[in-house]
Formats: sequence, C-alpha cells, structure tokens
Amino acid sequence: MLVVQKYGGSSVANAERIRRVARRVANVRAEGNSIVIVVSAMGDTTDDLINLVKEITSSPPEREMDMILSTGEQVSIALLAMAIKELGVPAISLNGIQVGIMTDNAHTRARILDVSTTRLKKELDRGNIVIVAGFQGIDESNDITTLGRGGSDTTAVALAVALKADLCEIYTDVDGVYTADPRIEPNAKKLDLVSYNEMLELANLGAVVLHPRSVELAMQYGIPLHVRSSFNHNLGTIVREVSSMEKTLVVTGVAYDLNVAKIGLYDVFDKPGIAYKLFKSLANEKINVDMIIQSATRNERNDISFTCSRNDLTKALSVVQKLLPEIGASGVTSNDNVAKVSIVGAGMVSNPGVAATMFGVLAEEGINLEMISTSEIKTSCVIEAGKAEKAVRVLHDKFNLAK
Amino acid sequence: MLVVQKYGGSSVANAERIRRVARRVANVRAEGNSIVIVVSAMGDTTDDLINLVKEITSSPPEREMDMILSTGEQVSIALLAMAIKELGVPAISLNGIQVGIMTDNAHTRARILDVSTTRLKKELDRGNIVIVAGFQGIDESNDITTLGRGGSDTTAVALAVALKADLCEIYTDVDGVYTADPRIEPNAKKLDLVSYNEMLELANLGAVVLHPRSVELAMQYGIPLHVRSSFNHNLGTIVREVSSMEKTLVVTGVAYDLNVAKIGLYDVFDKPGIAYKLFKSLANEKINVDMIIQSATRNERNDISFTCSRNDLTKALSVVQKLLPEIGASGVTSNDNVAKVSIVGAGMVSNPGVAATMFGVLAEEGINLEMISTSEIKTSCVIEAGKAEKAVRVLHDKFNLAK
Repeated sequence: MLVVQKYGGSSVANAERIRRVARRVANVRAEGNSIVIVVSAMGDTTDDLINLVKEITSSPPEREMDMILSTGEQVSIALLAMAIKELGVPAISLNGIQVGIMTDNAHTRARILDVSTTRLKKELDRGNIVIVAGFQGIDESNDITTLGRGGSDTTAVALAVALKADLCEIYTDVDGVYTADPRIEPNAKKLDLVSYNEMLELANLGAVVLHPRSVELAMQYGIPLHVRSSFNHNLGTIVREVSSMEKTLVVTGVAYDLNVAKIGLYDVFDKPGIAYKLFKSLANEKINVDMIIQSATRNERNDISFTCSRNDLTKALSVVQKLLPEIGASGVTSNDNVAKVSIVGAGMVSNPGVAATMFGVLAEEGINLEMISTSEIKTSCVIEAGKAEKAVRVLHDKFNLAK
Repeated sequence: MLVVQKYGGSSVANAERIRRVARRVANVRAEGNSIVIVVSAMGDTTDDLINLVKEITSSPPEREMDMILSTGEQVSIALLAMAIKELGVPAISLNGIQVGIMTDNAHTRARILDVSTTRLKKELDRGNIVIVAGFQGIDESNDITTLGRGGSDTTAVALAVALKADLCEIYTDVDGVYTADPRIEPNAKKLDLVSYNEMLELANLGAVVLHPRSVELAMQYGIPLHVRSSFNHNLGTIVREVSSMEKTLVVTGVAYDLNVAKIGLYDVFDKPGIAYKLFKSLANEKINVDMIIQSATRNERNDISFTCSRNDLTKALSVVQKLLPEIGASGVTSNDNVAKVSIVGAGMVSNPGVAATMFGVLAEEGINLEMISTSEIKTSCVIEAGKAEKAVRVLHDKFNLAK
C-alpha cells in the first residue's frame, strides 16, 4: 500500500517526539507499505521566525517572508530523515523545490497547481521513506512560496492525489474531529465519520484540525482522510464521501472562530457594480471576505456588512476608505471584538427549523446576533466575542451532540 | 562598478547588526554601484542546528546534514533583504538552488563546479541588490550541498569570478590580516597588502580570516580581495598578486593551528606503493592529510608520520588499523595534544636561513619540534599544544613583525 502521512508541528516539537514519529513510520513500513511523510515545522519554529522578522520590519515583503518561513520545514524533514535512518530504515528528505510542488505566486498564501512525481517515485523505488517539507512550494520563477498556516495538510493531500495513494493520514495532537472544541465543551464527542462537506464547513468555521483547502482537494479527488493522534494508536475520524443513508445526524458539530472582524458600510449607492467594485478591490489586496450581508434598499441606499480575519481589518478599512467617493457610503464602522459560532450538519437541509432552533437558544442566553449566514449544511452567527464559548456549550447541549 | 561583498556570521548576528549591514550596503549602492551580497548564517545558528542534530543521532547522514545546515543562510539572506527594502532600496534574496551554484556531491565539504549567472544578472538588471546564501550549492541530483565551514568566502569569490566583478570585499569582525593573532600577540600589526600565496599559507595554517579555497580561487582568476571589518570604515588588507619588487618582508606573518592531530607508524615495509595505499585509503574516507614525513630507510623499514584535523583522528586511526597487515607497521602512535606553528613570507625563498632562525628561537624557549615541513614561502613545525601561544609570540618578536 502507498501511504501518505502528515505530522503537524506538535508531533515533531522536539527530539523525543521526532524519534517517536520515526518509530511509528518504521513500523508502518515493516508492514510492507511504501510511505511518503509530510512534516510541518517543529513546534514554535514558525512563530520564532516571525518574531525575528518583526525585529527587522513591521511590513515584511511577502516573497522574503516565504524565503525565511520555509526553512522551518526544511529543518524538521532533515531531522526526521536522520531519526528514521538511525533505526536502520532508508529515508530521504526533500524540500518543495526538490519535489517540484508548483504553486501560483501568491506569496504567503499560494495555491498548489501541480505536483511532480518524478523525484518522489525515484526515491520510493529506491526503497526510501520520502520525507517532504509541508507548507511550501515554488512558483514559475523558481521562487519559494508558502501555502499559509496549516498548509501542510494541503501538501499531504496534494501528494496523495499526485501519487494516487491508497491512504492519507493526518496526524495531529487530538484524537480526531469532535462535535465541538473539547477544551470548551467537556462533553464533546469524537466523530468516527464526517463527510467532506461537513468537514469543510467545520474547518472553515474554526475547527482547526484540518486546513480547509486540504479538505476541498481531498473531496475533489475522492481521497479519504484519516485524522488521528500521533500520541496514541486510537482510530481517529474518517473524512470521506458519505451516502445519504448514513446522514443520520441533523447537526454534526458546533464550531467557533475568534479570528473575525466585522466592517459595516451605511447608505451605499444602490446601483449596479457597487458590490463588485468593493469586493473586487478587497480581493485585489488578497483580503479574504467571509460573510457578506446587504440589507434591503432604503431611499436608494443600501447597508453592506462583511467579515474578514482580524489581521486583515486594517488593510480592509484602508481599501474601503479609498473607495468611499465611488461607493458613496455615509459611514463606516468596524468591530474586531466579535466571534463566529456555527452549527454544521449534512442533515440540516432536510430538517427545517434547525436554524430557528439555533437562534432561539442564543436568544434565551441573551446573546445578540449581529450577522447571520446560512448554507445547505451550516448556519453561522456573528456574536460578541466574549460570549462565544458559552454559545458553543448551549448549542452542543441543545442539539444533543454528547449522546 | 560591480561589487561583491561577503558578510560573516558575526556581522549579521542580530537584528541591529543586520540593519547596520543594510545601511552600509545602501550607501555603496547610492554611489552608483551594482551589488551582490553573500551572507553567512547568523552568529551561532550553525552550532545551534548541529546541537539539534546531536539530539537525534551521533552519526548524521551528510546529505541530511547539508539539508538542515543550509537553512541558516536562508534565514539570514531573507532578513537582510527585508532590512535593505525597509530602507527603500530594492533587494532580493536567492538561495544556492535559485542562483544555480553547482557543486560536486561531496556533502558537507562540496566544491563549486560552476555558477550560473542567469538569475543573478536578471535581478541586477532589475536594479535589485542581490543577496545570496553563502556556504551552499546543489549537486547534479538537485540535492543541497554545503562547502564546509567558512565556505561563504568561497561563494563570494566564485560569484565575483562568474560575474567578472570589479571588487570583492570580505567583511569580518577584525580589521584585516595581521602578522599574528592579535589575541595572542598584542603587538601584531595589520598588513596592508599580502600576496595570494602568502594569504593561502596563512589561511591554511590557521589564520581564520579567509577560507583557503576562496584564496585559491581568487588567485586562479586574479580577483583582488579586500578583507575588512564590518564594524568600522577602516581600510583592511588587500590580497592580490604582488610583484617581486614589493616583496620586502622576509616573513609576513606567524600563524598557528590547534586543530591538529599526529599519527605515527613505525617500521612500515619499504616497498613501492605503500605510501600510495595508505594515503589513498585516507583520501577515500575524505580525511585531509596535512603534513607527511617519511624517515630514511632503516633495515628496509620506514617510519611514516602525518597530521590531520583532530576530529578526523578516530576515523584515520581506524583506516590505519585496517591496513596494518598490508603495510606491515610494527606500531602506531597518535597524539592530539599538538599544534602547528608556522611562519609565512614570500621573501623566504630568497633569504636562506629563515627556517634555521625559526628552529633556533623555538629551541631557546625549550620547545621541541615533533615534525617540520617547509615550502617556498612557509615553514611549519608541530609542537606541544600548550606551547603554541608562546611560540607565536617569540617568533613574532624575533622576525620584527611589530615594526
């Protein structure tokens, strides 16, 4: 069997943990498998590098940021290759350039375009366990790019797709995907199985066990993922296509995200092209906008609200300010003291009233809803940040997720 | 003018020093020059990485060692590029793969075979200050190699050669090349000018300001080097071809090297091919042998002594042990408590008696000579390690180098 395994930063945070991963990998190989390992940077390495950069500049050029950040993974792949060879098992480390992980040139948030399998297959054919640096690639100019935080998950799935792997295991420091964050809701339950769509919503909504783009990619190519802990041998959560017969749970999980800021524009001109202009300008600055709400027309003016990540707030506000003459807003407000709380479940679409139940529970707790957004399988509300944890607990309880 | 500058690890050891280098570089550019900068890893980074490796294995595979060590320079080039851009000056960092610094595949001690100038010239044409990772390259398999400690000097000279640079400046933490190590001999004097050959001998003999291979390369292509301090604007030492009229000093400097171990073989068969077998076997294990002495024949048996670096001693002894049946030595001794003290000067060849003066001075001080080796421009003696500093001082004094 050809297995791709991904180990996150906490799984390789120090020499002892690297040796543990090495033993685990060696055992999987002893069972006769071919193995490709994707590794993140050790523990806090990425943060340490960012702090080093902050001593030099407050606005680092993104190309140079990728140059420096990509070293973190290069250190961990070399150490893991050494630890595996120390066990007498052949291994070789490859960085993004050496594998040929081609991306676009959106530095610090690049997307994978193609993965070359030439070198990977050559090393597998030689009997090597191949250890690949996660999170990084190269663009067409041969410049180093990174995929954004959590991008190693995407690297692993992309390699699994390119190599047509039989299995893609994502090792992390928790046992799998839970109905809610167990640190907040002690009754949260591990899910044995979630569909790609549910996982995608959960990942996008702040459940940090999997990078959303890795789920997208796995869904697109039908690669099943096994999310599990590197600290024990328990079975984790399988993420795969789930047939409708299996969709028994109306609500699968509750997620929350504190990395949210909200911007409101009042009395925007009500004419075609205004929303395009606004969100195109934000996109040009590579600001990811999440929820967008436009109120009904009133005196030929609209109110538009949207959310973005907190660290993009300043940039987003300056984009908005520049556009004011064109879009004609009478006022701009912003708030980064908000959180997004969401319920997710593939069964929601066929169960009317689930969203209403959510609103009711939050209202009972005196939690005000600032924005609402729904899809077929999720409902999200923006609320005051300080009430996010409480909201998670009451929703988890209301939808009986601990059962 | 096209200038190549190299900054060592102490010149970029922290954010403040990196900013200082950035200002210096920006000033040189403001004078209208094109600039390529070669940088080493920050301060103790390389040692920190080696310590990390030691936690995993005591015998790291050299390919993986190069994978991890090369990250040190990748961090410092990105930071320096950021610091220069922060001053409003365009800059870009390139690692060894991106430049195309082709080497052989002797990991951890690779030699540069070729430097591609395509990317370098493209970035210079765009007006960028180009910052290149020293010490690293790639072999024909696209694997990362390193050039050995101090290899960044060689990178700088190789780039200067490839780009036909007008000037190659080597910035370090001392003011230039001295007649002896100023920490040992307070009267040591900075030299304004030394010839390639003298510098080569000094570098090989333990004067650590320049990597010997960088001097070889500069000599081969006639690139003048300017060795100077990054902490002030004093003129340093020029290393270039020196015409005989300028060769006024009989002895230019005194050097010493504590990284020496000595191996002696007694009663080796006196027949053709024995020395070849011995030193070929050592070379196969990549052990650099420095001095070799074979005594006159005695009963059809020879004594052979040689020196190598201290960290190669164990490996060298095991090579020798394996060969004993073939070479027939009756005994093997080794000693790593020795040092090599040398005097260097292009004028020595035309001044008979210089070596004898050296031996006499050392004898007066009761320093025993365990091995002697001479060339046209240097004389080296292996002595007891504890007496090395004293030997440097008395030789410096005897040859009037403080004048």
